[in-house]
Amino acid sequence: MQINEEKSVFRYKILISYDGRNYSGFQKQVEHDTIQQRLETALSNVLKQEINIIASGRTDAGVSAIEQVCHFDIENELNEKRLVGHVNSLLPEDIRVLACNKTNEDFHARFNAKRKTYEYYFYVGNIIPVYDSFASNIGYNIDIERMKGACAYFLGEHDFSGFCASNTAVSDKVRTIYECAISEVSDNLYRLTITGNGFLYNMVRIIMGTLVYVGLGKIQIQQLGQIISSRDRSKTGKTMPSKGLCLKKVEY
Amino acid sequence: MQINEEKSVFRYKILISYDGRNYSGFQKQVEHDTIQQRLETALSNVLKQEINIIASGRTDAGVSAIEQVCHFDIENELNEKRLVGHVNSLLPEDIRVLACNKTNEDFHARFNAKRKTYEYYFYVGNIIPVYDSFASNIGYNIDIERMKGACAYFLGEHDFSGFCASNTAVSDKVRTIYECAISEVSDNLYRLTITGNGFLYNMVRIIMGTLVYVGLGKIQIQQLGQIISSRDRSKTGKTMPSKGLCLKKVEY
Repeated sequence: MQINEEKSVFRYKILISYDGRNYSGFQKQVEHDTIQQRLETALSNVLKQEINIIASGRTDAGVSAIEQVCHFDIENELNEKRLVGHVNSLLPEDIRVLACNKTNEDFHARFNAKRKTYEYYFYVGNIIPVYDSFASNIGYNIDIERMKGACAYFLGEHDFSGFCASNTAVSDKVRTIYECAISEVSDNLYRLTITGNGFLYNMVRIIMGTLVYVGLGKIQIQQLGQIISSRDRSKTGKTMPSKGLCLKKVEY
Repeated sequence: MQINEEKSVFRYKILISYDGRNYSGFQKQVEHDTIQQRLETALSNVLKQEINIIASGRTDAGVSAIEQVCHFDIENELNEKRLVGHVNSLLPEDIRVLACNKTNEDFHARFNAKRKTYEYYFYVGNIIPVYDSFASNIGYNIDIERMKGACAYFLGEHDFSGFCASNTAVSDKVRTIYECAISEVSDNLYRLTITGNGFLYNMVRIIMGTLVYVGLGKIQIQQLGQIISSRDRSKTGKTMPSKGLCLKKVEY
């Protein structure tokens, strides 16, 4: 005889922010310090049950997030505001829960994400230690105006097969880019802002590396359309270091 | 009988950059890790003689510099380019020599400085770990537009007695401010840029604290002129944390 126990489940959406420089990325890995592990441990401690979180996507080792979105399920309703304070008191200072709110059972942090925005910080010229802690140095003699002009080529729907790590598992590599622009943050310090409906593994870092090649004159702007449509990883730029990369926000 | 030994001295100007977060400030102190100590040790090692450096001014514990200017004297001429590489190889990564050039014997990094520019980074709202590593959080419900408007009150020549630490030794507290403005660096992240012919001890941090009081409504904009001319430290804002402060450049 089976007893059909109807168990209600409550789903919570949490907004988190982290400085990824001290972690081996978001996703849990045995014997590595990760954002997910830290967060699940703190949540499980506070809620006295094992909590598994699902994020909008992983971020690589060293990559930070201004606003990352996750969800988790729990058997009982909770005091959201108290939870935030309690969990933050258990987390290291470089990981913060910004908000926690009950959401529909069918909300999914990963599958429902409609748009993501990443930022990549970089600077030119001499090594400046303050910048170097969060931005990549791209050297001298680089034409930023040309890089700015090249950004438009990435807009719209493209097959980004040439802009992902070779071990990318997904088969559909078509993504749509809504925004791609470089702005000046301070003298010699710049930021690439890129918004899309999704990003392949290492995609932002390879787009950035390709823009650097444009700035160095290794790739001509007028070749870009062809390079993108070639879907050939050997034609695109280097994968830039994770250091300058930051997940800015996720929209649903 | 005295022998009049004529000893030639060569003076070199060096441009340095540092992330001050791991140091007890610029100035040498017994049993503290300082920028000056690190730099003098590296220079002395490379040049095989004791080198003393004079900076445009000290920066406090935790304060960084994009471009700080120093000078030092040495008995023999040196290969400037080779020196930069050699010294940098001995320095920790968060202190860099950007350039070294022979200069006139009467050049003085401190006394000849005509204008200095500081930046103060701050952000509003939730604690964002990425920002918190280099900017001060000023909380919620703060009116940035009012703070922007208040900046103009600091322009021009004023006696800044109300804007320095009580243990400030200098007697002449009149300084001229050429630029004072707040700009938005990213969502919720801002930068105060302030240029003057000189700054008193903690002056930028107290001006920033006073601007925060304006943003919070603790000080009304129309009171500012009176508060500055009162020369009364008890009427001005708190000394903001050193974390957000950065020496941007020194002009001669």
